[in-house]
Order: sequence, then structure tokens, then C-alpha cells
Amino acid sequence: MVSIIDFINSLDNQVISIDIPSGLMGDKLFDTKVPKIIHANNTLSIAFPKQVFFLAEATKYIGVWHHIDIGISEMYQQMVAAEAYFIERKDVVHMLNPRNKFSHKGTYGHALLIAGSSSKMGAAVMASKAAMRTGLGLLTTHIPKSAVDILQISSPETMLSIDKNAYYFSGIDLLSNYNAIGVGPGLGLNKESHIALKILIQNANTPMVFDADALNILSENKTWLSFLKAGSILTPHPKEFERLAGKSNNSEERIELQKQFSIKHKIIIVLKGANTSITTPDGKHFYNSTGNPGMATAGSGDVLTGIILSLLAQSYDPQTAAILGVYIHGLAGDISAIENGFESLIASDIIDNIGKAFISLY
Amino acid sequence: MVSIIDFINSLDNQVISIDIPSGLMGDKLFDTKVPKIIHANNTLSIAFPKQVFFLAEATKYIGVWHHIDIGISEMYQQMVAAEAYFIERKDVVHMLNPRNKFSHKGTYGHALLIAGSSSKMGAAVMASKAAMRTGLGLLTTHIPKSAVDILQISSPETMLSIDKNAYYFSGIDLLSNYNAIGVGPGLGLNKESHIALKILIQNANTPMVFDADALNILSENKTWLSFLKAGSILTPHPKEFERLAGKSNNSEERIELQKQFSIKHKIIIVLKGANTSITTPDGKHFYNSTGNPGMATAGSGDVLTGIILSLLAQSYDPQTAAILGVYIHGLAGDISAIENGFESLIASDIIDNIGKAFISLY
Amino acid sequence: MVSIIDFINSLDNQVISIDIPSGLMGDKLFDTKVPKIIHANNTLSIAFPKQVFFLAEATKYIGVWHHIDIGISEMYQQMVAAEAYFIERKDVVHMLNPRNKFSHKGTYGHALLIAGSSSKMGAAVMASKAAMRTGLGLLTTHIPKSAVDILQISSPETMLSIDKNAYYFSGIDLLSNYNAIGVGPGLGLNKESHIALKILIQNANTPMVFDADALNILSENKTWLSFLKAGSILTPHPKEFERLAGKSNNSEERIELQKQFSIKHKIIIVLKGANTSITTPDGKHFYNSTGNPGMATAGSGDVLTGIILSLLAQSYDPQTAAILGVYIHGLAGDISAIENGFESLIASDIIDNIGKAFISLY
Amino acid sequence: MVSIIDFINSLDNQVISIDIPSGLMGDKLFDTKVPKIIHANNTLSIAFPKQVFFLAEATKYIGVWHHIDIGISEMYQQMVAAEAYFIERKDVVHMLNPRNKFSHKGTYGHALLIAGSSSKMGAAVMASKAAMRTGLGLLTTHIPKSAVDILQISSPETMLSIDKNAYYFSGIDLLSNYNAIGVGPGLGLNKESHIALKILIQNANTPMVFDADALNILSENKTWLSFLKAGSILTPHPKEFERLAGKSNNSEERIELQKQFSIKHKIIIVLKGANTSITTPDGKHFYNSTGNPGMATAGSGDVLTGIILSLLAQSYDPQTAAILGVYIHGLAGDISAIENGFESLIASDIIDNIGKAFISLY
Repeated sequence: MVSIIDFINSLDNQVISIDIPSGLMGDKLFDTKVPKIIHANNTLSIAFPKQVFFLAEATKYIGVWHHIDIGISEMYQQMVAAEAYFIERKDVVHMLNPRNKFSHKGTYGHALLIAGSSSKMGAAVMASKAAMRTGLGLLTTHIPKSAVDILQISSPETMLSIDKNAYYFSGIDLLSNYNAIGVGPGLGLNKESHIALKILIQNANTPMVFDADALNILSENKTWLSFLKAGSILTPHPKEFERLAGKSNNSEERIELQKQFSIKHKIIIVLKGANTSITTPDGKHFYNSTGNPGMATAGSGDVLTGIILSLLAQSYDPQTAAILGVYIHGLAGDISAIENGFESLIASDIIDNIGKAFISLY
Repeated sequence: MVSIIDFINSLDNQVISIDIPSGLMGDKLFDTKVPKIIHANNTLSIAFPKQVFFLAEATKYIGVWHHIDIGISEMYQQMVAAEAYFIERKDVVHMLNPRNKFSHKGTYGHALLIAGSSSKMGAAVMASKAAMRTGLGLLTTHIPKSAVDILQISSPETMLSIDKNAYYFSGIDLLSNYNAIGVGPGLGLNKESHIALKILIQNANTPMVFDADALNILSENKTWLSFLKAGSILTPHPKEFERLAGKSNNSEERIELQKQFSIKHKIIIVLKGANTSITTPDGKHFYNSTGNPGMATAGSGDVLTGIILSLLAQSYDPQTAAILGVYIHGLAGDISAIENGFESLIASDIIDNIGKAFISLY
Repeated sequence: MVSIIDFINSLDNQVISIDIPSGLMGDKLFDTKVPKIIHANNTLSIAFPKQVFFLAEATKYIGVWHHIDIGISEMYQQMVAAEAYFIERKDVVHMLNPRNKFSHKGTYGHALLIAGSSSKMGAAVMASKAAMRTGLGLLTTHIPKSAVDILQISSPETMLSIDKNAYYFSGIDLLSNYNAIGVGPGLGLNKESHIALKILIQNANTPMVFDADALNILSENKTWLSFLKAGSILTPHPKEFERLAGKSNNSEERIELQKQFSIKHKIIIVLKGANTSITTPDGKHFYNSTGNPGMATAGSGDVLTGIILSLLAQSYDPQTAAILGVYIHGLAGDISAIENGFESLIASDIIDNIGKAFISLY
Repeated sequence: MVSIIDFINSLDNQVISIDIPSGLMGDKLFDTKVPKIIHANNTLSIAFPKQVFFLAEATKYIGVWHHIDIGISEMYQQMVAAEAYFIERKDVVHMLNPRNKFSHKGTYGHALLIAGSSSKMGAAVMASKAAMRTGLGLLTTHIPKSAVDILQISSPETMLSIDKNAYYFSGIDLLSNYNAIGVGPGLGLNKESHIALKILIQNANTPMVFDADALNILSENKTWLSFLKAGSILTPHPKEFERLAGKSNNSEERIELQKQFSIKHKIIIVLKGANTSITTPDGKHFYNSTGNPGMATAGSGDVLTGIILSLLAQSYDPQTAAILGVYIHGLAGDISAIENGFESLIASDIIDNIGKAFISLY
């Protein structure tokens, strides 16, 4: 067998694997001693994508994978306990709450976003605009005093809560009006912001979304994790996740760590990347199907924070807010890539296409 | 009969009512003791929509209603005194004043808008832009001193009157240049603004539009209502209306209260919501046919204030300014929803589509 | 005859006049004693529009006029001395200088615009953007110190000359770099600005465009008119023209006054309105064919100033800069009206459509 | 022969030259004593464009040139050593690095841009936006303190490094995070900026792009040229190149000087103009095929700096970054000209069309 694999891999031909490349296991990575595995250009996966497809290390064997439906009944699919769920259009299309005729802006919640510091106010702008584009009734963004003009010019729909400090987050008084709180985009790492974040966590009575520098501060204060409200959502990229939860040797180990971390701290983890991985306190695991490498660009994560915060404030339960938010974000990015290409895609494009993403789910 | 209604309501079938669901009255809500009523998915209303269709409490019985024209002559329709008029395209299309070839910007009026406070300057931006997009010749927006850059960057067509206070409305000197005055969006509730509003009401010689915090200040100073110029327009949402006119037990009572309030204070009330309800000093009552629940979003009301102010300054009479303004606002929102969906619709979209709304009336 | 005119005018029928409505003279207004004249809905003018078509007072007799070509040869047309020329596409299409392959931004001139004061900085923004959209190589806009952010955010292509005064024009040092100078949009009437304008006129060595408050200051200092560089262009609206040149009893007298004023002061006058009227120092008179009443909106004139300044700096002779500028401005406005309707047309739309106006002349 | 050339040149007919106008040499300019040469309207060049086509002085003889393919094999073309290469779509289409599925924003580099001074902050805005639109992962723009709002409002995706000076570049501390550095757009010529640039050159450990005022400062400090990192890219227009490398009598001499300058200082020179000329340290010479005279407008060069900086930070080698960057810039300009015409094309249009330029290379 090995000699055939070597022979096939030595050819210039297009290589197509059926179900999974020979030599590769469906549900886990190989050992460090790399075995003989077919290097396919395309893999035609039968019935379901395999777990290993979502691990970066396996991509050189799998090439581009395609899903071949063989007619397994939906009912049977739901009976089988899967290790992980692959979130597609059919899964999110029923998650959308319809907007009632006699509803008003109060129906759609009031979110608080805490974001921005002197050299990174754009993050607050992008998260705010994304939140407003995702169905929110009212948004208040808490920003350092020097960012007042920036926010009001960039997003007139956003109301402000103005920090007494000009350059970074030093604290916020009133928390009673809000249905959900998001914190982190462009926040900076000032020591005073550490303390302000601690007090915020203690005082908040609503589910929260943590991103970016809020995660970095959490990483330096891991005891605070036990004070997070149940159902809080953390949205790290792999580097931020490593700071939070420790190093992994490969993406398989990182996924395992993510699952345990969600269960242990009773929080949802949205681990950003290709096929963003979402884990929940009750041990569920989801991979997202939308998104593209053009979204690997500054501010893309700030937009995701705004989207998830917006859904949370509209009373979507945290698991739905995370799954639907990640899906919409990726879909808006896919629409952006069609318009502007991968290279020219910037985070503001994703915001501009949230509407088209929603419409494609109607 | 009742047993049939129960039986029909117990079915999974689509239920279609002809004219009105059995058990529901056309012109008023049922008592608190809820009777047996068909729960229709769709109601095919003969000749005219019934009054009860505009009451939120009845929507679960009516489902989505459709209008079936049975050819009643226009002349006969006008002879019949209706309790309320349902404003459709045919009603507003003749309200539009054509723009004369030799007209100039002076022909189209000079409006004054008083809006914005430190954390809500965006409301001033949105109302200003909406006013300019609705045919106005000249706009001066009076804003706190700290908002100068925000306004001039966001709406270069708008001229400024600059308050000596940096953060809120503290007073305005010159009122003689203006054809209409609008006040309220993002105004805030500072005590000094209370006094400034009182003086403004005393000194103004033109029709005025009151919205948002100007309504909230009026609610705390109800004696001022008798000083409003005849033909002034108030644009509360239901919560603001309650503060102004008191509580109601249901939407039917609220409509009745609205009618009496308009007559008593000789003002037009635009009660915002699905099928926005407009009442006049001479007891007329109108329901709007445009708009959608995507417009339940921050700033939507500020845009309406700008639109109505603009029409008033162009010498539309107050009733026409209110009816046409509400219709255009809803239509621009409906066009926005087609482009961006209900969730992604933001107030700035409505402004951007005012032009297409006008064109659809040509 | 009179009884027939009375009879026709009493009918409800559509009235169409051939060449000119009976009773109306082609080249002048009637006396104050108004004669019997047909009130046409449409006038089908043979060969050329008549002078009287451009006078506002006659519009109620003429209705909408249309031009019927009867094949008079172009050569013969050019032999006949006309009182006034009606500028159409065929007249401007050859005025456009082609852009040479090996040209560079220096080829297209460096213009100076002096504009804006504390409450009217938007005028500086709109004139600057319009200038850059009209083919200019480089633009420096001189603004009060407090407007630095406003300009740089709104028009990054524009370089600044920063006045030492925060709120109005108090003077400018260096004038040697520029190919043309425009002054006036949003300038304000501060006394210091009067003096600064006087010094500017004395020191300038290039053709200049005067608009808005620069015209109002000139009106209060009419002796300065004799110091204007030959070929300077003034762009008043009728009110500003009245302040400059005195009152007229009707639009016919105003046109006559405009011609004399151009000759006497050796300047081009662009009298803005329907069919903008352009007169030159050598007694020529032009009516523009583009434009619409949607352009009767704040900032429309600032855009025209930017356009004409831009053409002047690109070495178009002053007469061509005025004629071509007015034509392009009107055409961009006509394209805007198709997109947004007359009511929603704002000055920024005109700027956005300058490109399409140019393309339609290729 | 001469008499025939004179005779042809005296005709009104369209003149078409095959391969090259008679009397003109393919690879160099004529002497100062101008010989008899055909003045063609169009030249149909056989197989390859001739070197002389890229010299401004020859354009009056050549008219518009067209390329006639006679089927010379690609392999043979590559065997022939050419004096200069004409960069077309087929040459750049393989230069594009595909974006890998499991890549993240770190994969696409972190660039530092140093730009802007008090009256020219727009240059920093345009270069920043262009960099983000060209595939960059992260951008930090170093700006004077007073430009913080301008940048964050105009480009929220850009992070800031804030100079302690309010109005110009006075120095930057941390350089270790960046994959490439660009300096110059709108920088100004303050003496302190001279010193800061010197220190920057000494401390930088990455390839750099020098433009605009950074080139002007280099011109006054030519000894610094020997300290530039190998592979640095300079993007002068002809005037800036003259200041750097000295005068030339014609464009042929200037090209020769450019080649020698690149070799001597081990830098890439991008000499901007029609068919931008690129020379490398190993003596290669390239002419660009995209672009149009509408791009002769303020800010066009700032956009190019942003594009090249972005590619350099993404690990394109300097020669590829220069060639691909110049090609994309010109192509985005060509797409802009189709939309807006030559006259209305502004630098911001080029930025907006970078995405469509990339897509046209897929």
C-alpha cells in the first residue's frame, strides 16, 4: 500500500480522494511520525465532512473538500450523536427571529459596547456599526473622552457613554439599562483598564461578550474567569486563546482544550479562524461553514464582536447568538469577497454586507 | 358557533378570514373578557380595512390583512364620513408641490433645527440630513459648541447656529429668519434646556415640530402646551405619548386619547408605530400605510422629524406636512428593507432612500 | 383677435403655441400694462428659442418650450449675429481640452480656494470637492484654523493653507504658486475679512472667481471693482447681483444691467438661475441649457464656484471656464435628479455626478 | 525619401505607420538636430513595442501605438535579452500569492506608514486606505498628534502610532513589530523631520518605501543614500527624481540615469509617469502598461506608496512589490476612468477600485 501512495504522490496528475485520503484518519491527527498519506487535490467526502478536515495540519493531504450527499435521512442524522456539528444555511435559517409588525425599537434591545483607546478608536467604530447593522434597537458605546467626535461622525445611530479618561477605559457607572454588554475591541492594556474591567465583571447582570484586549486582560487575571456570568461569550483568535488557556502542540489538541475550557468555565468560546470553532458549557462543538481568507484583515474580529453583542441584546440565547453571529459574519465576508476580491476586503466591507447576508437567509 | 371557532383554531391548516375574523368587531376592541375569535393567518378585507386592524392587540386574530377592491366609486367613498382615513399612494401623490422652473433656494424655505447634546449628536446629524433630502432650500441647525465638527463633516449642506454651551441647548437668539422650527432630537434633559425650550416656545412665530426630549420636557411642563402655535406637530412614540397625555389600558383607548389631545391643544399628533396614527385639531384621524418593523431602530424618529420640518418650512400646511412626511418616511424605509433587509436597516438608510421614495410618487 | 385670445384662455383644453404665444414679443417683455397674450401649455419654437423664453415673467404664457429644428445650416447660423447664444451640448463638446498621455499633475494647474467661516465650513468642503472632481491637478484651500479637521476628513485630496484666525478669513501670505484663485463660499462678513479680501485683490496676479460673501463684501466696497484682474468671474444669484449692481424692475432690465456691468468692469458675470445667464466684457451673452429646479438647494452655488475655479486653473480662458463650468454643473444636476428626484437633490449629489457629466461629453 | 516624408506630413489624411514611423529610431531619441520623421496618427508596432515609444518627446511622431502579435513563441521571447520589459496582464497574473484557507491576519504582515503633516494629513489617509485595500494584515500609521481624529474617522481599520509633535514627524520609538516601512506622503520638510528620517533610516531593519517629502529630504542629504537597506524602493515623479539624481536633457537621458542610480545605490526606482519606469539594482528595466492621464491628480502617488508598502509587508520581494504595485495602481485608475472619466478621477477613486483590479487578475 505504502508504495502505491508514494507512487501516486510522485505523479503530476490531479489526485481525487473519495471520502478521505488513504492513510488519513477521519477523527484525529496522525502522530508526529507522519505516516504515508495521499496528497489529494480534491476530496469528495461521503455524507458528512470528517473532523480532520477542520485541522490546519491536514489541509495538505485533503486539498479542497466537497460534500457528497447520499440521502441519509434528516431524522437519522439527528439521532446520531456527532462529535461536532457543521453549521450550514439550513441550520441557521430557522434561528432568525421574525420582526413583528407592532414591534418597536425597545423590542430589539439596548446593548452596551465598551471599546476603543487612543490609538485604536477605529475598533469601537467598527464594532458599533456592525452591532447597529445586526438588528439592534439601541446601542450605547462607552468610549474615552477624546473619541467623542470619531464615534458620532462615523456612526450617528450610536449613543455614547463618555469615560472621564481621555485615552482609555477607566470605569463606567450605570449598567442597569442594558440587555447585553460587549467589551474589548481596541481597549488597550492600561492598568486602570484592568481594574475597570474587573469592576465591570463584578457589576454586570447581563450576558457579556469578551474580545481582543479584554481577553488579554483576562489572560493576566485568570481567577476572574470564575466570576463571568453563565452564558458569557469569549471570541479569541488562536494567539489570544493560547494566552487564556495555554499552549497546544497542534490544532487537534487546541480544539480539545477549547472544549474543556468551555465546560470548566461555563462559557461559550468562539475560536476564530478558518471554520471558526464554537464550544459550549454543555460540551457541544460547532464548526462554521462560511468565511474566507480575505477576512484575515484588521478589524474583522471587531465586527464579529458587534454582531454577537447585537444578537445577545435582542434576546437570542448565547449559543444561538454565537452560532448565528459567526455564520452571518462569514457570509457577509463571502459576499464582500465577490465584490472586492480577497486582497481588497477590509472590515468595513463586512459591515456593509451584513444586510445582504440576512436577506440571503430569508 | 363557538364550538366551530374552537375547532377551526385547533387545526394546523392555514386559516383565511373573509372581511374580518368571526367574533372580532370591526371598529373596536373586545372587552377584557376575551371572546371566542377565529385566529386567521390571512384576512381578506372587503372594500376598506377595518379600524381594529390598526390595534396591536387584534393582530393575532387578523394575521396579515389584504385589501380586496370591490369597485366602490371614489365619489361615493368621499361622501361617506369615515372614522379614520388610511393613507395610500393615491392620497399623497397629489400633495406634492411641483418645483417651478424659475424657483430658487429661497422658494423652498429656511428651516431651523435645534438638536443634539454631548452624547447624542448623531440625532442632530440624521435629522439635518433628512431635512436637506426632503426638498428644503436652506437649513440652519442649532447645536452645542462641541458639535461643530461633527455636523460640518457629516452634512456640509447644513449651516450652523452655535450654542454658547458646549454640551447642551442653553438658548438661541435670532428666530426671525426661519419658516419653521424643529426641536428635540438628541436634545437631552438638562435643566437649562428646559428653560431654553420655554423661551423658544414663547418667541417662535412659525409652526414647530416637537420630538424626543423636547416632548419629554413638555411632559414635565404641561402648562406650556397651551402656548404652542396652532398647527404645531408633536411626534411621540407610545412611551413619550403616555408621558404627555397619560396612560391607556390598550391601543384603542390610546387612539381615543390621541384624538382628544389633538383637539384640546390644537396640535397635530403623530403617534409613531406600525401604521403611524395622525390626529388633527379638527378631529381628523389618519393611519399610514407605509413602513416596516425594520424601522424600529435608533434614529428612525430623528429622520422623521427632519422630513416633517423640511416640508413645513416649504409651506406645506401642517396636516399635509405630517401626512406626507410620515408616508415618505415609511416608503423610504420600505425601499431600504428591500436593499438591506429588516435587521440591517439603520436610520441612515432611510435618509439615503428619501429620493427614491419621492421618485416613486412622480 | 383679443376676443379669440380671451376665448382660448378660458378653455380647459391643452393649448399649444407654434413658435411663440400670440401677443408675446420674441425679444422683450411687454409693458407694465399687460396685453392680451395666449397662455400656452407648450410652445413649439421654430429654429431658435426666443429671448423672452429666458425671462421668468413670461413663463406663464409660454409653458414648457420645445425646440423644432427646421434645418437652417450651421454656417448660416454662425453668420447671423445673435443677441444671445443658447449653450447646448454641441457648443461645449469641443471646448474640452483632451488630457495628454505624458501630462502630469502639474499640467492641470494649482488652484487656491479661500472659503469657510465658523458656521459655514461646509461651503469650503463642497467647493473643494467640486474643484478636484473637475480635472484640477492640485488644490490648496485656505481655511480658518478651526476647520482643519473638517476639510482633511471630507476631502483628503485637498491641501490646506491655514489662516491664523480660528473662525474667519483674516489674510493669506503666499500667492505665487497658484494658477487661479477662488474666494467666497461660506466666507462670512467679518470686518477683518473685508480687509483681507481687499489685500487679496491687490496682490493677486491670476484670474479670480468671486462668489457668495466675497460678492457681498464687494457690494459694500464697489470702488474695488476697478481693481479686479481682467477676466475675473463673478457668480452672483439675483439677490447678490442686485446688491452689486442695483435694483431692476424685471428680469429683462436685470439682463440689460448684467451686460452693461460686464462691459464696464471688464469682468464675466455668471447670473445664476434657470438658464443661467453669462455676460462677458466684450458684450457677449449666453444662456445655459442644463440644470433643473432641484438644484435650488443649499451649496449648489459653492459647487459651481469649485468647478469654474478648477477650469480656470487648468488654463481654460475665463469665458470658456464660465460657459463650460455652468454647463457641466447643470448637467451633473440633471443626472442627479434622475437618480434622486428634484426634492432629494443635495449639493453633494452634483459633485458626485460631475464625472458622469464629463463622460456624457466624450 | 525626405521629400516624401515632408509631403506626407503636409497632408490632412490620417497617417498610419507600420512598425515605427519612418525616420524614427526604435531604441533611442534623435539628435538635437531633429531629422525628417513621419508624424503618424497611429503606429502599428510589429511583435514588440519599441523603446522610443516610452519617451515623451517621440509621442508626436508615433501618435497612438498598437501592438500587432505575429506569433513569436513565448519561449523564444524569453531567450532574447531585452533592454526593457513591458509589463502586461500575463506578466503579473502569476505574481499574486494565493491566500491560504488557514491563514490569519498575521500571515499578511504588519506595515508601518509614516506620513502627514499639519496641512497635508490627507496624504496619510489615502496611503493608509490604499495599503489596507491591498491585502495587508495590519497597518500602523505614524502621524502627528493633531491628526488622530482625521485618521480614525477616515480609516477605522488603521491603528495609530502618535508622534509627540502636533504638526509634523519628529521621531518614532518602536520599530521592531513591522515587516515593512513606508515614509513620505504629506510629510513636510520641517528640519526636525530631517533628523527623524535620518534616525529612522539608521534603525530600520526592514525594506522601506520612500516617497514625496521623504525623497525631497533625501535629495538634500544624498550621503544617506548609502545607508538605505538593500531592496528599498523609491517612488519619485520626474521633478523629485531630478532633485535626487540631477538634471537630464531629455527623457532618454533620464531613463539612463535612472538605471545607473538603481545599480549604484542598490535600490529600486519607480519613476512615475505615463508607462511608469521601474529599474532594479541588478540592472533590470520595466515599463508599466496600465494607467491613464486622469491619474495626474493630487494624491495619486500617495495611493501608490500605500499599495507598494502593503505588498512589501506581505513578503513580496521588492522587485515584485514594485512591478505588481505599479500595475495594480494603474489598473485601478483605468477602472476609475471608465466610471468617472479622466477629469473627475480623484485619488480616492483609485483606492475604491483596487479590489476590482485584483479581481480582474484572478
